[in-house]
Amino acid sequence: MNKDYLPEEIIAQKRDGRALSHAEIRFWIEGVMSGDFLDYQSAALLMAIYLKGMNEKETARLTEEMMRSGEVISLREISLPKVDKHSTGGVGDKVSLILAPLAASVGLCVPMISGRGLGHTGGTLDKLESIPGFRTDLTTVAYREQLKRLGVAMIGQTEEFVPADKRLYALRDVTATVESIPLICASIMSKKLAEGIDSLVLDVKFGKGAFMKEREDAIALAEAMVAIGRRMGRPTRAILTAMDQPLGHTVGNALEVIEVIECLKGRGSDDLIEVTFTLTAHMMISAGLVENVNEAIPLLREKISSGDALEKFKELIRAQGGDTRVVDDYGRFSRAQKVVDIRASQSGYVNEVNTLKIGMASLKLGAGRSLIEDSIDPAVGICDLVKIGQKIEVGQIICRLHGNEEDRLAAAREEIKFAFVIVEEQKVPPVLIHGVITDEGLID
Amino acid sequence: MNKDYLPEEIIAQKRDGRALSHAEIRFWIEGVMSGDFLDYQSAALLMAIYLKGMNEKETARLTEEMMRSGEVISLREISLPKVDKHSTGGVGDKVSLILAPLAASVGLCVPMISGRGLGHTGGTLDKLESIPGFRTDLTTVAYREQLKRLGVAMIGQTEEFVPADKRLYALRDVTATVESIPLICASIMSKKLAEGIDSLVLDVKFGKGAFMKEREDAIALAEAMVAIGRRMGRPTRAILTAMDQPLGHTVGNALEVIEVIECLKGRGSDDLIEVTFTLTAHMMISAGLVENVNEAIPLLREKISSGDALEKFKELIRAQGGDTRVVDDYGRFSRAQKVVDIRASQSGYVNEVNTLKIGMASLKLGAGRSLIEDSIDPAVGICDLVKIGQKIEVGQIICRLHGNEEDRLAAAREEIKFAFVIVEEQKVPPVLIHGVITDEGLID
Repeated sequence: MNKDYLPEEIIAQKRDGRALSHAEIRFWIEGVMSGDFLDYQSAALLMAIYLKGMNEKETARLTEEMMRSGEVISLREISLPKVDKHSTGGVGDKVSLILAPLAASVGLCVPMISGRGLGHTGGTLDKLESIPGFRTDLTTVAYREQLKRLGVAMIGQTEEFVPADKRLYALRDVTATVESIPLICASIMSKKLAEGIDSLVLDVKFGKGAFMKEREDAIALAEAMVAIGRRMGRPTRAILTAMDQPLGHTVGNALEVIEVIECLKGRGSDDLIEVTFTLTAHMMISAGLVENVNEAIPLLREKISSGDALEKFKELIRAQGGDTRVVDDYGRFSRAQKVVDIRASQSGYVNEVNTLKIGMASLKLGAGRSLIEDSIDPAVGICDLVKIGQKIEVGQIICRLHGNEEDRLAAAREEIKFAFVIVEEQKVPPVLIHGVITDEGLID
Repeated sequence: MNKDYLPEEIIAQKRDGRALSHAEIRFWIEGVMSGDFLDYQSAALLMAIYLKGMNEKETARLTEEMMRSGEVISLREISLPKVDKHSTGGVGDKVSLILAPLAASVGLCVPMISGRGLGHTGGTLDKLESIPGFRTDLTTVAYREQLKRLGVAMIGQTEEFVPADKRLYALRDVTATVESIPLICASIMSKKLAEGIDSLVLDVKFGKGAFMKEREDAIALAEAMVAIGRRMGRPTRAILTAMDQPLGHTVGNALEVIEVIECLKGRGSDDLIEVTFTLTAHMMISAGLVENVNEAIPLLREKISSGDALEKFKELIRAQGGDTRVVDDYGRFSRAQKVVDIRASQSGYVNEVNTLKIGMASLKLGAGRSLIEDSIDPAVGICDLVKIGQKIEVGQIICRLHGNEEDRLAAAREEIKFAFVIVEEQKVPPVLIHGVITDEGLID
C-alpha cells in the first residue's frame, strides 16, 4: 500500500472544498483497484465530489487515472482517422448503428466500445445482439484486426476495460452520486479515450426524455467533456440535441435495428437522419475530411443512396458473426407474439409525445433493464410512433405495442395511455440540433 | 425489509439539502442495524449530513432512533434525581471520577456509562481499571442494583448499548465525517439518554487541547445538545470550559486516579476543583437540589472536608470489585519502571503549556490508544505538570515522565521538548469557566 496518504485525509480535503492533486487522485483510483481505499470511503468521497465539485484539472486527472486502471488500446498501426461518437442517451436513440457503418463508408475508422447500462430500452450492444448470431464479445486482438480491415467494430467492454469505472459506477448508482458533472465526465471520457481514438464527437441530449433535463446542465456537461478531451490531446466536440420525443418511429431492440436498416436503405425518418448526419458530419470535420457540415451532407447522402453504408453494415454484421440475411428479411428477427394497436381517442395534431412514458412502457414490455441482471427480450417494443406536429384522425393508430406477455402488455398500455397529447392546433416540430460546443465554445 | 424507501432516495434527499422525515431517519437506522442500508450508503449519507447539516428536529429524531437501536435502561424505580455528566474530552480530564462520588454523596443518583474511545490518555473506564480488581463490565441488572444501593455506578457500554452508534462511529472515523455537529450531538445524546437519566450536564471544552478549537463551535455544539435534551424531555445544560492546559497536574491512568484521590482528600489543584465543583453544582441545580452555584459550593466543600465523598468513592470501588486499599496506599497501583524528570532550561513564568504535545507525549508513553485495539499501560503518564502563571527557576522540574520502555520514553521526551514556554512576564492563569448554556441560551 502506498503510505503517502490516508483515505480519510483525501476525503477531508475534498469535503473542505479543496482540489485534489494528481497524486491524491492516483492514490484513490489505485486504492479502489487494490482495495486499500474501501468502498465506504469511496462513497464518502464521491458524495464530497458531488457536493463540492472538481475543477477541470482534477476531472482530467481523474479521467486519466480511471482510463489507466485497465487496458488502454492502441490503434496506432491504423492510419485512418479514428473517431468515435458517444451519446448521453435517449429513448429510441439508435443513431450509433447507422452512424458507425456510414462513417466507415466515408473513410473513417470507428472504434466503438459500449457498456451495458440500465435503460428503458437496451443499449447499442443489446440492439446489435437482436441480430441472430451477432457477437459483441470480441477480443482486443480481433477488434483491432477488424478495425484495420473494415474500419468499424462495435463491441462490449471486457472486464479489463476501465475497471475503476465499473466499480465506481456501481457505487454511485446506489449512493445518489450519479448526477455529478465531473464524475459523469470522467466516466464517459475514460472509456472513450481507452478505445484508441484520435478524436471524439459527443451527442449531449437535453429535455424531458434525456438524462439532463435543462439545456444549461447539458452545456455544462458538454463543456466539461470538451475540456477533458483537449487536455488529453483528443479533440472533442459536442452536439447539443433535444430529446423532446423519441428519435424515429420505434423503441425496442429488434424493432430499432429494423428501423436502422430502413434508414440505411434511404427510408429513415427526418429526425433520425438529421441527428445521424449531423453527428457523422462532425466526425468528418474533426478528422479533417471536410470543412463544415454543409460539405459533409451530400457525401453522406451519396453513401446512403449508393447502398455503400448499408453494405458496410452488412460487412459489420458478417464480421461479428451475425446473419446478414436480416437486412433483406426482417422475419429473421425474433418477433413478439402479440401486437396491440394504440389508437387516438380524438382528432387533431400531436402536440406532445411523453418520452419518459414511452420509455417506461418499453421497459415494462421487457425491452430494457431496471436492474443490471435483468434479461432483455429482443422482440418487444413499440413501433409506428407518431411524431409531434403530425395530423391525426380519431381511431388512427398512434403506436403499436409488441409484447410477449399479457401482464407486461397491460402494464405498458397503462403507462402509454397519457403519453400522447392531441390538440386542435398544429405545433411546429421541435428543433433538434441546438448547437455545437468545441474548444472555441458554443456555436448555435 | 421496509419497502417504503430506497436508501439512495434518502441519500439524495439530504444531498439536495432537504430535511429527512422521522420515518426516513428510522428507515436509515433500522437499515444500519439490519444491513438493508449498506455501509457505503451510510458513508455517502454521513458525508451529505456533514456538508448539508441537520436541523434540530432531525437531530433529535436521529438521537432517538440511535438510542432505540439497543437497550434503553429504565431507572424509574429509583426515586433520587438521576443526573449524569458528559465531557467532550480533554487532556488530563479526570473530573468524572471525582464528580460521580461527590454528586452521589449530596444525594444525586449518577448512572454513568462510558465508551472506550481513542485518545491521548485512556477514558474514564481505563482510569478506573487502573485500580486493581476494578470491573466496569457490570450487567444491566447489577448496574441498576448498585445505583439503587449506592447512588453511583461507572460502567462500560455493552454490545447491546446503542449499537447503531458503534457502527456509525466506526464508519465516520474512516470517512472524514467525525466533526459534524448533528452527528456528534446524536452520538453523545443517544448514549446518555439510554442510561435512564432525568437530566444531564455537559462539559463542552474548547481551545487548543480540545476537540473544538473555537469557542463559537463549542457554543454551537452545546446549543445543539441542549436543544436535543429539551426535545427528548431530559433537561440538559452545558458548561463551556477552556482547555488551554491539561487539567490538574497529571496525565495518565493510575497517575490520574491518584490525583483524583488526592482531590477527594481535599488536596486537589484549583483548576480541577473549580471545574468539578461547577459541573457538580449544575447537576444539583438541574435536579432541583439548589438554586444556583453559590448555594451548591459550600455543600460540596463540606462533602470533601467531611470525607463523605472519598467514602463514596471507596464504596464505589468496593462495589465494583476494586481494591479499596489503593486509597491509602498508592503503592498498590502499578508503577512505571522509570521516571524521567524534565527540567526548565530557563527561569521565568510558565506562559504556555501545549496541551496537544502533552497529550501526544502521554500517548507515546503508552497511556492512550491511537487504534481501538491498542492496549493501555495503566502505570505510564506524566505528573508534576507545572501550570500557566507559575514561577519557575532554571533546572526546576516542570514535569516527570513515567515510562516502562526506553524508546517510548525517548519519543515522549522528544514530543514534550517544546510543550512549555517560559517567559519573563507573568501571565494571569486563563479563565476556566466560560458560561452556561441552558434552554434560555448562553449565560456568561
